Amino acid sequence: MKTYSIAKSRRVRSTPYTSRIEKQGVTSYTVYNHMLLPAAFGSLEDSYHHLKEYVQIWDVAGERQVEISGVDAAKLVQLMTCRDLSKSKNGRCYYCPLIDDQAGLINDPVVLRISEDRWWISIADSDVILYAKGLAIGNKFNVKITEPNVDIMAIQGPKSFKLMEDIFGEKIKQLKFFGFDYFEFGGDKHLIAQSGWSKQGGYEIYVENTSSGLKLYDYLFEKGKQYNVKPGCPNLIERIESGLLSYGNDIDNGDNPYECGFDKYVNIDSDVEFLGKEKLKKIKSEGIKRKLMGVEFDMKEISLSGSLNLMDEKGHIIGELRSACFSPFFKKVIGIAMMKKPFWEVSQTVNIKINGNNLTGKVCDLPFI
Amino acid sequence: MKTYSIAKSRRVRSTPYTSRIEKQGVTSYTVYNHMLLPAAFGSLEDSYHHLKEYVQIWDVAGERQVEISGVDAAKLVQLMTCRDLSKSKNGRCYYCPLIDDQAGLINDPVVLRISEDRWWISIADSDVILYAKGLAIGNKFNVKITEPNVDIMAIQGPKSFKLMEDIFGEKIKQLKFFGFDYFEFGGDKHLIAQSGWSKQGGYEIYVENTSSGLKLYDYLFEKGKQYNVKPGCPNLIERIESGLLSYGNDIDNGDNPYECGFDKYVNIDSDVEFLGKEKLKKIKSEGIKRKLMGVEFDMKEISLSGSLNLMDEKGHIIGELRSACFSPFFKKVIGIAMMKKPFWEVSQTVNIKINGNNLTGKVCDLPFI
Repeated sequence: MKTYSIAKSRRVRSTPYTSRIEKQGVTSYTVYNHMLLPAAFGSLEDSYHHLKEYVQIWDVAGERQVEISGVDAAKLVQLMTCRDLSKSKNGRCYYCPLIDDQAGLINDPVVLRISEDRWWISIADSDVILYAKGLAIGNKFNVKITEPNVDIMAIQGPKSFKLMEDIFGEKIKQLKFFGFDYFEFGGDKHLIAQSGWSKQGGYEIYVENTSSGLKLYDYLFEKGKQYNVKPGCPNLIERIESGLLSYGNDIDNGDNPYECGFDKYVNIDSDVEFLGKEKLKKIKSEGIKRKLMGVEFDMKEISLSGSLNLMDEKGHIIGELRSACFSPFFKKVIGIAMMKKPFWEVSQTVNIKINGNNLTGKVCDLPFI
Repeated sequence: MKTYSIAKSRRVRSTPYTSRIEKQGVTSYTVYNHMLLPAAFGSLEDSYHHLKEYVQIWDVAGERQVEISGVDAAKLVQLMTCRDLSKSKNGRCYYCPLIDDQAGLINDPVVLRISEDRWWISIADSDVILYAKGLAIGNKFNVKITEPNVDIMAIQGPKSFKLMEDIFGEKIKQLKFFGFDYFEFGGDKHLIAQSGWSKQGGYEIYVENTSSGLKLYDYLFEKGKQYNVKPGCPNLIERIESGLLSYGNDIDNGDNPYECGFDKYVNIDSDVEFLGKEKLKKIKSEGIKRKLMGVEFDMKEISLSGSLNLMDEKGHIIGELRSACFSPFFKKVIGIAMMKKPFWEVSQTVNIKINGNNLTGKVCDLPFI
């Protein structure tokens, strides 16, 4: 596939790490929350194998924070998500589908409860800050809503635990999955969570002090040499194999949480007030008409730049392929598709046309691994 | 400057015209409202000269529409902008700064009043739909808010008038600047406005019927041969020379309308209710502390990927350069900068450091031409 260059400008913001990753061999970018997000350092497959075995440092500053603080902060955060946060705890991360009053997905962030009246919403690619501002103004909530200067770097891969222990000591081993705490580096405190957009394990460092963060970035590469550290970025192959959904790719505002398999994050029987609750009750009682599923094809490559229709043997559209890649693990093409009822059953045959060729695959469960 | 490829995916949406412009030689993209926006077809300067003399067809589908309809539609649109729309007319476009309750800019769209209870907000690069939804839900407004399937193609340049007359006949000559109406092509109606993001004149076709729009796209190139038609896109050089501001580049949520020179679109003495009105009154009475101005440097080239500080002779920061290009017309580098008080006076000397070199320029008025 022909490649096109990305035009840089102030509007498509660089990150504090951009100049570093450009020296380190980034080859491709995407744009995420109006910011450059690295998409490849050479071969996706090489990077995939490396991520599964060693440790990578990722510039994921595009994962912006929406900070909501003030006496009505908890009320506003709860209003936006169908997940019951009434028993949430300080120092914990919560994966929360955000929805509108029609139960359409707005975003699927990780929400960090810093304190009862201060939250960070670590967002996927949509301007959640505008939704929050609109709701706060309309409801006359007493909150302050900002995008703080937080530029996340992720430390991902099986060797990330050793590397981080070398730098931050024993204390970091006490951090549980989706827990966060403050850790010291060179006299500065950094919020670090055990989290990240891979299933290979690791951490996300929420860098507020940029100059300290850049020193830490360099130090991670220095100390990481013994673990074969490399620069990296969210990896298309790894994230599809692991069934990590991408807002805008696999799910969007036209989908509701039940269709996306988020059932365990939909608490319609709770007492908390959130938008779209009545709509979700109706959807649940009537049953969903589409469902996000895996698909697999005996093919050696695929490159999607948009949706592809999936058809039955008569050519009727029965689903929409939204993300796909060749999986070195399964040695076939795997993808994520929104399937229409009743065609979402495992082993359902699906047909696809790529470059004039008709290919046949089948539906399977998510996640793949 | 090294170039990097753009990673395509469903999240960074293609447009109905993408496959065509890729055959026609697009070389660079940016991302605008989660959609591919062409940024160059080879040389920016060649394209600039062509635009000023002939006619170009632009894929500006990234300029998405937020449709607001229903009995409270006018109230909601007015709530978001400091421009008094109480005397607005159907069939007219209005350039409207959208602001939040702190008078920070949210977007600077062109608002189309289709009817009293149906509006299109033709947006710059931020998710205005989420702001509108939040406000509508919070205020319990009776409105419907959607992003309709509208993919704009712009016909820009001095020969656009002749070309469009050839296709749509005499009637299109009656369309005034920022007026819109429906025009027929091959049996289908298209909403066409006399507008566009250049100062070379032209039209924007709001394509709702995609298949008809694609036929029209091809027909424009066929009929346009005699006018030396070419594919193009918003041109950095032309838009800076013309002083057309770009949200995210020249202006952002940290700026208020007065700082951006939008005084004539700020109607604080009107009776209409909009957000940030009290804040704007306060800003006006106290006076602004920063102001958007032009700057010029005797240099042959510049390439910005972010802001650059402007300094006085002692090295103190007195402003921030946000966009810049080499202007073939002025034979120097021109740019748009947010200048601090009192350094915004015309002829103020500004110093800048690029690649270790110290360069001197001066402040000037906007627009340049």
